[in-house]
Amino acid sequence: MEWISKSKILIVGLGLIGGSYARALKRLGYSVTALSRRQETIDYALREGIIDAGSAAVDEALVGEADAVIFALYPGVFKDWIRENQSLLKPGAMLTDVTGVKSCIVYDIQEMLRSDVEFIAAHPMAGREVYGVENSDERIFRDANFIVTPTARNTDKAIDWCRSLGKLLGFRKVSVLSPEEHDEMISFVSQLTHCIAVALMTCSDNQHLVDYTGDSFRDLTRIARINDVMWSELFLLNKEPLLRQMDIFLKEFSELRDLLAAEDREGLCGKMRLSTERRAYFDR
Amino acid sequence: MEWISKSKILIVGLGLIGGSYARALKRLGYSVTALSRRQETIDYALREGIIDAGSAAVDEALVGEADAVIFALYPGVFKDWIRENQSLLKPGAMLTDVTGVKSCIVYDIQEMLRSDVEFIAAHPMAGREVYGVENSDERIFRDANFIVTPTARNTDKAIDWCRSLGKLLGFRKVSVLSPEEHDEMISFVSQLTHCIAVALMTCSDNQHLVDYTGDSFRDLTRIARINDVMWSELFLLNKEPLLRQMDIFLKEFSELRDLLAAEDREGLCGKMRLSTERRAYFDR
Repeated sequence: MEWISKSKILIVGLGLIGGSYARALKRLGYSVTALSRRQETIDYALREGIIDAGSAAVDEALVGEADAVIFALYPGVFKDWIRENQSLLKPGAMLTDVTGVKSCIVYDIQEMLRSDVEFIAAHPMAGREVYGVENSDERIFRDANFIVTPTARNTDKAIDWCRSLGKLLGFRKVSVLSPEEHDEMISFVSQLTHCIAVALMTCSDNQHLVDYTGDSFRDLTRIARINDVMWSELFLLNKEPLLRQMDIFLKEFSELRDLLAAEDREGLCGKMRLSTERRAYFDR
Repeated sequence: MEWISKSKILIVGLGLIGGSYARALKRLGYSVTALSRRQETIDYALREGIIDAGSAAVDEALVGEADAVIFALYPGVFKDWIRENQSLLKPGAMLTDVTGVKSCIVYDIQEMLRSDVEFIAAHPMAGREVYGVENSDERIFRDANFIVTPTARNTDKAIDWCRSLGKLLGFRKVSVLSPEEHDEMISFVSQLTHCIAVALMTCSDNQHLVDYTGDSFRDLTRIARINDVMWSELFLLNKEPLLRQMDIFLKEFSELRDLLAAEDREGLCGKMRLSTERRAYFDR
């Protein structure tokens, strides 16, 4: 990985994920710079030694000298940045991102991008219920998956580069999926589960039940503390796959409800045996 | 608590919960005996020192000398046991149970019971995803709630006795609720969450997604490994409260789905802000 050992890496958007990338890459000895909207974020990261240099404005020098640029922005902001600032990128630069949805963004970025730089998309499936560079921590990658989502436009070199990046960051597993496969998968394992947690939490004002909740209720609603701006954007950008999953879940849940209403003991047992059997795959 | 220090305690049904009661009470120095269907269960408990004596048949001497009897049986089996064997109980004996639903059983048991013994119902809200005396462990009580559910027929002495029992067993919190309040609460915090986990797990055969699931999916489906015979019985016995909760959840989830279908960003954000605000109550 000689190519990367000489790289200067620029991170655009120094929040929880961008900050965690910065920490990991800096510890590995790379030159890491950052652009982020708030000056306090840059000051904090410099003070903590998370980055070597940074700016709250789009700095021509920082962008122009970066061999690799990692975009850790909201999807809409990411597109705007490319549209407005791509002329500053170094010829031959490798770009990647951390966006949680793929089809809606990968093709658009590749379509509008200069032909002498390459964008290879990725989704680090890691996170916390807190935000900001102050909470960044590279340990969140250790038990997590890193998904590279190339299109037909991507070179093998870029795909290899991005897989290496996932490994360098310390992810447990690095996989390659098409943007469409990724979005279908994420709609089920992440977005649907967040919808369920939110709906369970908004069912009623259950403050008086705090004393009686056990682990199961707490486990199901942990992710009900949610960044509304980010997640509503991710849901809307992945609307069709997520609606399909929500409708499948609604049908399953309604079937269970109707079995109970009909007092169909054998039917209820059948659903429970199936869920028990399938859950066994997921025990590691 | 002199009354209890002299007590001989009989546990009927030596599974995960009955076994955990036995371990806790034995360690505190009580004389603990047990009845359980399978001889291997009794042999194991004797070998491990969990009980002082036991029998796989209904033993007249063991029942007749018990000052307190704890029933850790399925609800239907519990009723049958009382109907068939209550003549053997010691006059003045105190009876309690561990059943996860209350209204459907407490009144029936009290109605059929001899007038010289007293039944005070309780629900230890503790459990594991494994079963049997071999997995019993009194540590499951440490972070859990113990709910005493008296009726108008119960004496203050019995209520106090049962609260003391919960404290002796090591529960974090001991509360008193009416059987109806208990059933409404349990339909939401426990039964609805199990329904959600089962429905999510039966949505589709997602074995190929194992590699991509993060903590949120695992947290939401941990309880999808479920004892189908026990839980279907508990659901059916608490049918009306559970159906009410399932219908409220269906309505909430459908609203979230419709907001997404209508691309109502502000509506989605509103639901997420509400869920975030409410979840904050539950962080301990």
